[in-house]
Amino acid sequence: MTYNVAILGASGYTGAELVRLISTHPDLKIVGLSGNSKAGMTMAEVFPHLRHLDLPRLTTIEDMSFDGVDMVFCGLPHATSQEVIAKLPDHVRIVDMSADFRLRDTADYEKWYGKAHAAPDLQKTAVYGLTEFYREQIKTARLVAGTGCNAATGQYALRPLISSSVIDLDHIIIDLKAAVSGAGRSLKENLLHAELSEGAHAYAVGGTHRHLGEFDQEFSAIAGRPVQVQFTPHLLPANRGILATVYVHGDADEVHSTLSQAYANETFIITLPKGEHPSIKHIRASNFCHIGVVADRIPGRTIIIAALDNLTKGSSGQALQNANLMLGLNETSGLMVAPVFP
Amino acid sequence: MTYNVAILGASGYTGAELVRLISTHPDLKIVGLSGNSKAGMTMAEVFPHLRHLDLPRLTTIEDMSFDGVDMVFCGLPHATSQEVIAKLPDHVRIVDMSADFRLRDTADYEKWYGKAHAAPDLQKTAVYGLTEFYREQIKTARLVAGTGCNAATGQYALRPLISSSVIDLDHIIIDLKAAVSGAGRSLKENLLHAELSEGAHAYAVGGTHRHLGEFDQEFSAIAGRPVQVQFTPHLLPANRGILATVYVHGDADEVHSTLSQAYANETFIITLPKGEHPSIKHIRASNFCHIGVVADRIPGRTIIIAALDNLTKGSSGQALQNANLMLGLNETSGLMVAPVFP
Amino acid sequence: MTYNVAILGASGYTGAELVRLISTHPDLKIVGLSGNSKAGMTMAEVFPHLRHLDLPRLTTIEDMSFDGVDMVFCGLPHATSQEVIAKLPDHVRIVDMSADFRLRDTADYEKWYGKAHAAPDLQKTAVYGLTEFYREQIKTARLVAGTGCNAATGQYALRPLISSSVIDLDHIIIDLKAAVSGAGRSLKENLLHAELSEGAHAYAVGGTHRHLGEFDQEFSAIAGRPVQVQFTPHLLPANRGILATVYVHGDADEVHSTLSQAYANETFIITLPKGEHPSIKHIRASNFCHIGVVADRIPGRTIIIAALDNLTKGSSGQALQNANLMLGLNETSGLMVAPVFP
Amino acid sequence: MTYNVAILGASGYTGAELVRLISTHPDLKIVGLSGNSKAGMTMAEVFPHLRHLDLPRLTTIEDMSFDGVDMVFCGLPHATSQEVIAKLPDHVRIVDMSADFRLRDTADYEKWYGKAHAAPDLQKTAVYGLTEFYREQIKTARLVAGTGCNAATGQYALRPLISSSVIDLDHIIIDLKAAVSGAGRSLKENLLHAELSEGAHAYAVGGTHRHLGEFDQEFSAIAGRPVQVQFTPHLLPANRGILATVYVHGDADEVHSTLSQAYANETFIITLPKGEHPSIKHIRASNFCHIGVVADRIPGRTIIIAALDNLTKGSSGQALQNANLMLGLNETSGLMVAPVFP
Repeated sequence: MTYNVAILGASGYTGAELVRLISTHPDLKIVGLSGNSKAGMTMAEVFPHLRHLDLPRLTTIEDMSFDGVDMVFCGLPHATSQEVIAKLPDHVRIVDMSADFRLRDTADYEKWYGKAHAAPDLQKTAVYGLTEFYREQIKTARLVAGTGCNAATGQYALRPLISSSVIDLDHIIIDLKAAVSGAGRSLKENLLHAELSEGAHAYAVGGTHRHLGEFDQEFSAIAGRPVQVQFTPHLLPANRGILATVYVHGDADEVHSTLSQAYANETFIITLPKGEHPSIKHIRASNFCHIGVVADRIPGRTIIIAALDNLTKGSSGQALQNANLMLGLNETSGLMVAPVFP
Repeated sequence: MTYNVAILGASGYTGAELVRLISTHPDLKIVGLSGNSKAGMTMAEVFPHLRHLDLPRLTTIEDMSFDGVDMVFCGLPHATSQEVIAKLPDHVRIVDMSADFRLRDTADYEKWYGKAHAAPDLQKTAVYGLTEFYREQIKTARLVAGTGCNAATGQYALRPLISSSVIDLDHIIIDLKAAVSGAGRSLKENLLHAELSEGAHAYAVGGTHRHLGEFDQEFSAIAGRPVQVQFTPHLLPANRGILATVYVHGDADEVHSTLSQAYANETFIITLPKGEHPSIKHIRASNFCHIGVVADRIPGRTIIIAALDNLTKGSSGQALQNANLMLGLNETSGLMVAPVFP
Repeated sequence: MTYNVAILGASGYTGAELVRLISTHPDLKIVGLSGNSKAGMTMAEVFPHLRHLDLPRLTTIEDMSFDGVDMVFCGLPHATSQEVIAKLPDHVRIVDMSADFRLRDTADYEKWYGKAHAAPDLQKTAVYGLTEFYREQIKTARLVAGTGCNAATGQYALRPLISSSVIDLDHIIIDLKAAVSGAGRSLKENLLHAELSEGAHAYAVGGTHRHLGEFDQEFSAIAGRPVQVQFTPHLLPANRGILATVYVHGDADEVHSTLSQAYANETFIITLPKGEHPSIKHIRASNFCHIGVVADRIPGRTIIIAALDNLTKGSSGQALQNANLMLGLNETSGLMVAPVFP
Repeated sequence: MTYNVAILGASGYTGAELVRLISTHPDLKIVGLSGNSKAGMTMAEVFPHLRHLDLPRLTTIEDMSFDGVDMVFCGLPHATSQEVIAKLPDHVRIVDMSADFRLRDTADYEKWYGKAHAAPDLQKTAVYGLTEFYREQIKTARLVAGTGCNAATGQYALRPLISSSVIDLDHIIIDLKAAVSGAGRSLKENLLHAELSEGAHAYAVGGTHRHLGEFDQEFSAIAGRPVQVQFTPHLLPANRGILATVYVHGDADEVHSTLSQAYANETFIITLPKGEHPSIKHIRASNFCHIGVVADRIPGRTIIIAALDNLTKGSSGQALQNANLMLGLNETSGLMVAPVFP
């Protein structure tokens, strides 16, 4: 059976990545693409790498018909997303890739995003889209909230450790290195090639990055008490990939066995043999996440390193994985393409 | 029906690219992988990006059994390839990705490669692997010779024009820009990141690049008289992709319509609307080749620009496309993955 | 003696490059910096790499005093430049780095830039700033027009050959590869890291690039008859550098000896031994231009390859070299820093 | 007065960087260059970016005369360096850029480098070359040991804090990101462009990197008790630059004021305004080090970020700064070139 899908905000990088993945999916058919600023254009004009595909022309959201549409992927900017989703007809199911439905608490949302949520009722029903940890709820959800790409990376490294109490909750540091496509196709000076290439710097230093809202929400819920981590993201002179180096107090063997067991049956989350650690080069353009564990020379200190592709496992791949679950399809359909190397 | 394939020289980039493509191919199963210098290692050790796959361990060629093997892909270095292939059992069919069987004439081979061919009889039976132009011969061939990646790019831009006599055969210049993976995983100073990044330079300037042997052979055969082109390759600070800017004397409209017609029914060769031209960014990690045609301000002068990925359409993708034909499979199986952007 | 200089448009890349070069110049002192959109900011805020320098704060042009200013460098956008320069007080001498005064003929200007020149009288008095060929006029000029960076590269390869009649004037092709900083610090989608890195493509194909106006003007003047070249620029995934591969009909020995003699006494223009050719990696962040000559396998065809840094020898370094001449200083002051490698 | 200098190991990146810096130094003249594997070649052949300079031809060390040589810079590989330096005539003063004389204790040397020191007496006399902290000893030293580039970066961030007791000595984490030129011009697979570009990964994870020997030695000496830090280096897809993100327990205001005061009179070490933090893009190809301090949201936690260029301030620039001191020259001679941006 073929399901009809529409992608809102298809002129951004997450939209293009979804089209790439869906193009070899056996059960999904793209019937609508919106991109307000580029409405009327073909996808070949906006993304020439997709010109071999037979795709609908970009429209405005207003001009899009949702008749017969089973699933909507929403790649709109934050704040816009909640307004658009609130108006979608009841029969469509939705995977949102914006930040709008990641936080369950309206006060938290306001704290991190600086304004009241426009669809607080919907917000409460949204399921957090970290597939491996919310699989059952996702299957039956109408609205799934895609996670932050950095938030996903840090959680894959830490969730099983927090729920198993194998690490000290008050000494967790996530030093994260992220490639630039996570910032989207936005015209900002610091995203220019001349500014970024041969460069590297931190940003949102000191605990101001919005993905901390997700870490706080999820880690505190798992621990049953408030947990605050330190989180410093850095921008890499690369296009795809996130590498999170996580410093914890805990025994490396215990950490490694806890992660290994937690992900033993997961297709996409791979715990490396103890002592090995990953590179963003080895998961690029794929839905895989590699996690390594190394003991520090200081007893009781352990380093966990996780790598995933922000556009795939960190966003559009995750979205497709969740959509597969929601539609009752094979969870891995369209997602088994191997990483691209070199 | 599943066919068993073996890859010789699997520890190089073309070997890894083949594994990537075959990993989602419905009808092929990898049963053997050789890599003499890395025999005994797993592919996950040699190429960690492939660690999610269940693959045979690397062996030496001597230790490899060809019983039950239907197809051998050969990614060995030049000169080694001809010796190995000459000893393969009769029942296997072979796609060679080295330069050893590209030139049909033994004297030409000796001229460009500096030594006599070790398997001249085999050389005569090999079919030149430029799929779109040798399709029928490839279907029944036992041995197909993969083309040079630069040679493929230039030929896609020029073959239909030479056979249609729409350009002046004495004024053809191919100024080509190639990413570094074409040089393979070899330890050479000029391939180091510190030497190449932020750099760009020509190489083999003046008509010394071996792929000229292919241009000479093919273009002269088509034209029915000797044709010599000028060909200057340049090294780009990028990993994948070839961009060939071709300068011809001929009418742009005629050039464009000739190419459009020639490739009208081809899945992978896409002629862009007249006036548009391609980027290597838009075919990366895919089997597509984009070709653009632009009229110069000087009447009668036309620029043709062709782009393909040297590892995919220029090598391993071409090899798989040819193998599909040889095995009677759908020609595009395993090859429809969209380009990766950004 | 110290001369006071002001830089208009100091918040762009050419402005920053000038500050970098002048920072070690023994005879120049920066007394004014303008940057209308960033007026009020310090240079450390706009360009943190210059934070160790004691520099004036950015102002608007209106707020800048030209009392005591000996030399103005003008890094403003095209069209703006001519309006600002027309109003500068008589006592200042000017090196303009925009395109506004490169073309001597008002009709040519209108043809290539699409509007009438706002200061046609000034236009006539401007000296074309290709130092090595206009040295005497530059010494006494009030206004020197910096050349296009691509135009400079092509001219270094070709001028001596045209004036010596050693090449066929009707078969000249300049295939040029340019790094991205030549496009300035402008917010355009195609200049984003995610769009450019790992990419390469041509632009302004077919004879539409404005630097052709300079080629036409200069080459025709030298030859004493109209000369039109073919010129195809390409964008490289790199920040600095231009590599021009020039195809001519002419004898390689004659070409090489002509260039060698022409530049024998020039500090910055270096003709490589015959058969060698340059890389942009080897002139980066310096005022040097390397030129190589190689004979093609086709008799009578020669390839010339020239490399320079678009921001230095192609723009700000040239500007400083010209200013040195205008002020009676040592021509090479502030310009002898070696290229940065790797 | 002009001093004669020789560079041993001039065919590596640190050798080339020294030549670049010395080329504009008013008081130093390069009279000897060694490079055993490339003896007999000109520097223009080994490093074409230096072809405009009049430099001696490369020789073997054996063939080099040290008559009249005042200063030797030694850029040889570890272990080789100690053997060569032990045999140098008494009249030359030496700045070693290898790791051979960084550790004062012979047991420490053996622990980190895996073999006994071949010149233990010399080892004891060597002065640790972190200029700002060993200035007086350097002035009179015969042999100065250049520091590790990573070790320098971490120490600039931490030394004043350890000596002032403003941070908890048992909770120091240095998460460091280093560009690839720090690994030298060595032919290793992981240094190839195709392997590194678009990649990022940690190395020497868990406390095995040799620069930890320097941290241990220096921090313990300052603190007067053993201090062990956590240190995880990462490889960046860039050529130059080190960014160290340092996590400490301590008050951000106190940290910032301590660093500001410590470096108030230093030319090359710049403490940024509190809350700002550096980029490797802003110190590239210069001798400057930028340090930023940011308070974390968790009270009592502070992040310090330091950036320098591994080849300049981290190696050859430091070497020249030390040589200037040893020869009684202006400490900053040849070192005031501004960073190259973009």
